[in-house]
Amino acid sequence: MMNWIIEEKGFYPDKAVSNGNKFLIGNGYMGVRGTLEEFTKKELTAVNLAGVYDRVGNGWREPLNAPNGLYTVLKVDGKVYNLPDVSPVEHSIWLDYRKAVFSRETTWQTPKGKVTVKAERFASLDEPHLLAMKYCVSADYNANIEIITGIDADIWDINGPHYDAFSFLQEEVCLGVIGTTHESKDKVCVIEGCQTHFHSEQQVKSDDKHIMRSLSFITEPLKTFEMNKWVAVYTSKDANDFKQQAKLLINHHMEKGYQETKDVHIRKWEKKWAVSEVVIEGDDEAMEALNYSLYHLHSIAPRHADSLSIAARGLSGQTYKGAVFWDTEMFMLDFFLYTEPAVARTLLKYRTDTLEGAKNKAKGYGYDGAFYAWESQEGGYDACSDYNVTDVFTGRPMRTYFKDKQIHISSAIVYGIMRYVDLTGDHSILEEGGAETIIECAKFYYSLLLKKVNKDYYELHDVIGPDEYHERVNNNGYSNRMAKFTFEKAMYVFDLLKLLSANTAERIENMYHIEELRQKFADAAKCLYIPGPDEDGVIEQFDGYKELEDVSVDEVKSRILNEKEYWGGAYGVATHTQIIKQADVVTWLTLFPNDFPKEILLKNWHYYEPRTEHGSSLSACMYALLACRTGMAEKAYPFFLKSARADIDEGGKQWAGLIYIGGTHPAAAGGAYMTAINGFGGLYFEDEKVKVKSQLPSTWKKLQFKVWYRGELYQVNQTHDEITIKKCDI
Amino acid sequence: MMNWIIEEKGFYPDKAVSNGNKFLIGNGYMGVRGTLEEFTKKELTAVNLAGVYDRVGNGWREPLNAPNGLYTVLKVDGKVYNLPDVSPVEHSIWLDYRKAVFSRETTWQTPKGKVTVKAERFASLDEPHLLAMKYCVSADYNANIEIITGIDADIWDINGPHYDAFSFLQEEVCLGVIGTTHESKDKVCVIEGCQTHFHSEQQVKSDDKHIMRSLSFITEPLKTFEMNKWVAVYTSKDANDFKQQAKLLINHHMEKGYQETKDVHIRKWEKKWAVSEVVIEGDDEAMEALNYSLYHLHSIAPRHADSLSIAARGLSGQTYKGAVFWDTEMFMLDFFLYTEPAVARTLLKYRTDTLEGAKNKAKGYGYDGAFYAWESQEGGYDACSDYNVTDVFTGRPMRTYFKDKQIHISSAIVYGIMRYVDLTGDHSILEEGGAETIIECAKFYYSLLLKKVNKDYYELHDVIGPDEYHERVNNNGYSNRMAKFTFEKAMYVFDLLKLLSANTAERIENMYHIEELRQKFADAAKCLYIPGPDEDGVIEQFDGYKELEDVSVDEVKSRILNEKEYWGGAYGVATHTQIIKQADVVTWLTLFPNDFPKEILLKNWHYYEPRTEHGSSLSACMYALLACRTGMAEKAYPFFLKSARADIDEGGKQWAGLIYIGGTHPAAAGGAYMTAINGFGGLYFEDEKVKVKSQLPSTWKKLQFKVWYRGELYQVNQTHDEITIKKCDI
Repeated sequence: MMNWIIEEKGFYPDKAVSNGNKFLIGNGYMGVRGTLEEFTKKELTAVNLAGVYDRVGNGWREPLNAPNGLYTVLKVDGKVYNLPDVSPVEHSIWLDYRKAVFSRETTWQTPKGKVTVKAERFASLDEPHLLAMKYCVSADYNANIEIITGIDADIWDINGPHYDAFSFLQEEVCLGVIGTTHESKDKVCVIEGCQTHFHSEQQVKSDDKHIMRSLSFITEPLKTFEMNKWVAVYTSKDANDFKQQAKLLINHHMEKGYQETKDVHIRKWEKKWAVSEVVIEGDDEAMEALNYSLYHLHSIAPRHADSLSIAARGLSGQTYKGAVFWDTEMFMLDFFLYTEPAVARTLLKYRTDTLEGAKNKAKGYGYDGAFYAWESQEGGYDACSDYNVTDVFTGRPMRTYFKDKQIHISSAIVYGIMRYVDLTGDHSILEEGGAETIIECAKFYYSLLLKKVNKDYYELHDVIGPDEYHERVNNNGYSNRMAKFTFEKAMYVFDLLKLLSANTAERIENMYHIEELRQKFADAAKCLYIPGPDEDGVIEQFDGYKELEDVSVDEVKSRILNEKEYWGGAYGVATHTQIIKQADVVTWLTLFPNDFPKEILLKNWHYYEPRTEHGSSLSACMYALLACRTGMAEKAYPFFLKSARADIDEGGKQWAGLIYIGGTHPAAAGGAYMTAINGFGGLYFEDEKVKVKSQLPSTWKKLQFKVWYRGELYQVNQTHDEITIKKCDI
Repeated sequence: MMNWIIEEKGFYPDKAVSNGNKFLIGNGYMGVRGTLEEFTKKELTAVNLAGVYDRVGNGWREPLNAPNGLYTVLKVDGKVYNLPDVSPVEHSIWLDYRKAVFSRETTWQTPKGKVTVKAERFASLDEPHLLAMKYCVSADYNANIEIITGIDADIWDINGPHYDAFSFLQEEVCLGVIGTTHESKDKVCVIEGCQTHFHSEQQVKSDDKHIMRSLSFITEPLKTFEMNKWVAVYTSKDANDFKQQAKLLINHHMEKGYQETKDVHIRKWEKKWAVSEVVIEGDDEAMEALNYSLYHLHSIAPRHADSLSIAARGLSGQTYKGAVFWDTEMFMLDFFLYTEPAVARTLLKYRTDTLEGAKNKAKGYGYDGAFYAWESQEGGYDACSDYNVTDVFTGRPMRTYFKDKQIHISSAIVYGIMRYVDLTGDHSILEEGGAETIIECAKFYYSLLLKKVNKDYYELHDVIGPDEYHERVNNNGYSNRMAKFTFEKAMYVFDLLKLLSANTAERIENMYHIEELRQKFADAAKCLYIPGPDEDGVIEQFDGYKELEDVSVDEVKSRILNEKEYWGGAYGVATHTQIIKQADVVTWLTLFPNDFPKEILLKNWHYYEPRTEHGSSLSACMYALLACRTGMAEKAYPFFLKSARADIDEGGKQWAGLIYIGGTHPAAAGGAYMTAINGFGGLYFEDEKVKVKSQLPSTWKKLQFKVWYRGELYQVNQTHDEITIKKCDI
């Protein structure tokens, strides 16, 4: 039975980091790592803000962490009782991911008796700027308690410190910290308010990184002493009067009381689950893992904005520079399209609004059109470095080509926009920049096309495909196919112009020589070389791939000299072999299964799967999806579970040398969802209708979900015997 | 005053290896390293054979060393007196490079008195299969001497052993060894004959690697005991009855006597010097270094064959796999064209005769035409490995691209053939395969041409230019320019067909659609992008070069972590900087000085010189030549001297890890010659006339040399006041 709770009993100090991800709470505006109230930057505590970045010195530009307004330390009889410093006699943490509330309960033995802290907190889904916490203390004797709670501005940063200065404020019941960021002098404002249901002596203290109040009281056995706390987080980008708004928010909620704040929050989540819950009867593990994945996607969905995207590690920290990768469009988008199309629109608006950045990037390399950032930050700035990996043998930065050669990124944007248009029927995204975006991406690919003077087809050279272990290859099948798709969609946009508003049509017609571009793109789509299956039915991933050494993943692993060495680059252990990092040809075939007969899809699945390291969390779901498509639901299942459990298991890489690279895996979560719905569920759309080709694993008695399609919400129920699709009353 | 002798007094064991190169003797058929008679493989003794290769196991294919027929050990009073085991009281070696005779004299103190060995040897210029040696012993007391002389088949090899078996023979006065090579079961036959001018007891002994005779006698004070020895070296490729011929050769010379053999040899050398000597009055050092360089070129000239080339390290060993590089055509050819055009023809015939190998290589990569071997062995086989460098940090082989991306090699062949045709007026090389060679090289480049679909010019991508530190670059100026040259020369060949024999014209017309090719090549020559000077007059070496880090050579050196690390490759210290290994743009401008006004030549010289490591012995002369061309003879001079002294100074790299990479530097020798004659001497040819634009350094009072041009020999004398050019009576 699903109880919608994940729990960990006992205290394991070395799990602090992975629990930070696993027990994350968030509301799209901010994410709060699942660390304990008394934890500091040592345990990678973070209140991670969406889409706000800062750069210091030569470090990477990365998203901001806000001062931690939940910071609370307990003193008993004059002595601090903190984890991990003082071992508890009992300890557990749990996340109710239906309600999105994180809780902890810890009991310590003091010389005089036992003292217990029980706390819970949530990031309000109703109010993006609000965190709320309940903190309860009890003891089996008359303990002399001091709760020290306030704001910790001694922030964990990977490439910080990002605040040049802090100012503190203490007004009425509120404490506050306002930090000024280094690069653009933005303000980040954290204001907290506190209520107790008991009488206490209060005192406020501050130093250069903290402002804290202490609440002193004496407990009575069998009685619980409850403190409630609200934390408002704003930046100067949110509003000019951010400080006023923060204080108003706190006061408003303090008046209403904690339970009211929490009830509203839970009701909002229930509304999300009413649409997005996926019921899998007969497989609790899968249902739990999948809905837990969806919890993470909900927690990072940017509902507070109309043009913002999701970072590769969500809101779990500064890892991967908080940048937006192709993960969003290719792996997360379907979840939002099916369950909350407005969020999908917000994600794509981020791309159309950063078209200028993509055009500048293209121009910088001497290309036309729009070359989207491989690691996109504000304004489409590409945070990806030319030296993204450190050579473990020499300590030198290695020239990498993710930024300049991974050209398939632009096609991912086009794919996302077109999928939005197709599934929602809403053309407005095209009117608001989407049309230009698609045309500029096509222009980009057009400017990359090469023709051997003595051949009559076009090629794309010197690229990196999804499999990053093989750099600077020619005619990566996936990239070429996606470029062709882009040309076709640009032509589609030209055809669609008459259906768009007169304003849009006129704007586009004024911007482009449409007939000339149409001819060029038609020629490009026709002449671009797309590799086909060889005599064994296998499509070569890129020119010359089949000539590389054909060895097993284990053999390649056995050649490793240093566990942290990079498998790719010019001389990596995988580079000159057929071992690939992640689905590449298989990604192509998953996106375009009608390009080849099923037999070819199968042959490629079976060829590439044993040659795939699955070194990226993006890999498993593509194999799972193609396995479903080719009637191999049982083979798909372990890949599905791997994707769905990516954040429960925390099996991924956590550290690269001294740099933390862990975090949540929203792309894997999205991939798991796609596998459940599009794969096992066999959902597809044809003739403007919702259809399914069910592929349920044998253990699944029933699969039940809802999806939005063209403005209608559909309920889909599948068993092995019966399929029902019906429109819901909205 | 020139005495034509280089000498080393005193014995320094650690110079054995470099002296092996410096005191090398050779006659084009074989080279004998300048080691002592008693030296073995420990001191890298070698009798290196031209153009005969063998491969064992996974080692590189490399040229054969023959058993050493000069091997001689001295025993005095029952004890072996060998260097380096027994220290001498006096020792010197010298090379008379006018006569091409290497000598040593060594005196040891024995318990009873002093014993002296004086020996000399030469590789007969008259008879390519013949080595000869005089070995004299004297003592100041009645020493009991045993000379043990014979054949040492315990051969130094880099990747050996190359002989599966040896058979020994002892017939009349001759001892012999016949080795059977591993790969193609060729026979290498070494037969020696010995004469003494004194009575001795003789005895022959052999083991599995030696066949030796001992000559025992007692010396008398003031009397010299002289032994003469002849060694014949043949392979089964030379003749079927190689053993007979070897014996006949030995017997013939034993009858004539040592002095006669030597006199003929010296007379032959005098004939070479009569044409090739370069007189530099006022600068003995330059004259000595230059003529010593020419000695080396003469010693390795393949006069015994009509289709054979010269290895990058001449006949000084197996280094660089004994392979033929572009060095021959681009750096050595002028010397032979000017002084002995028949040798130049032989060198080029090797290329036209290995056209099939070049066509196979091109085909293997999916290209048309002829892609010549980067490291050419028999039949044009490319000995270059895809993993030509070992990573010193990991011990792993590094994927290198010398073989597959250094496309300029084919143009070097075309350049050499056309220079031969131009300077000799002899079209027969075109008739005998040269025409096809040029056309196939043009077809090769044609098949590499890329056109960006939205541009109207052609490009060459993903190449390595002469500067090997920058791999896989686009539009390397040198490579593009040489490809254009190749297209033009192919068109010239088409135009020339009517002047060639009817047979040749018909053959070519039957092989090719000439009109179609002519149009293609004309289009290619017209549309191929050739980079031009930027606003500072500097030509970018390849696309994006100017964006690389602009640092000094010293700064790059300071970043080295391991003195043996490779500067190039994907992550080398030079790779992402503007530091280049050797002349690249400057090589282009040296070959085609009329492409740009002198001011541009100067600007590029000054831009690139400080950015050049000169890590190749091919670099200095190109800078010297362009400096002369632009009126900077004084700046040219140190580069000239560096080239000319390359083998005297032995300053180059000797070891790469445990692999010996030293040897002689014939390309530097040829480059020094070109600098003296074409640079300082200002020699050029115009309107079928020999002309000079003299650029003598101020210290040079007179420069005097002879050159062949179109069948006539010219004497050119230059002083600062007067220039005379006159035809010689031939």
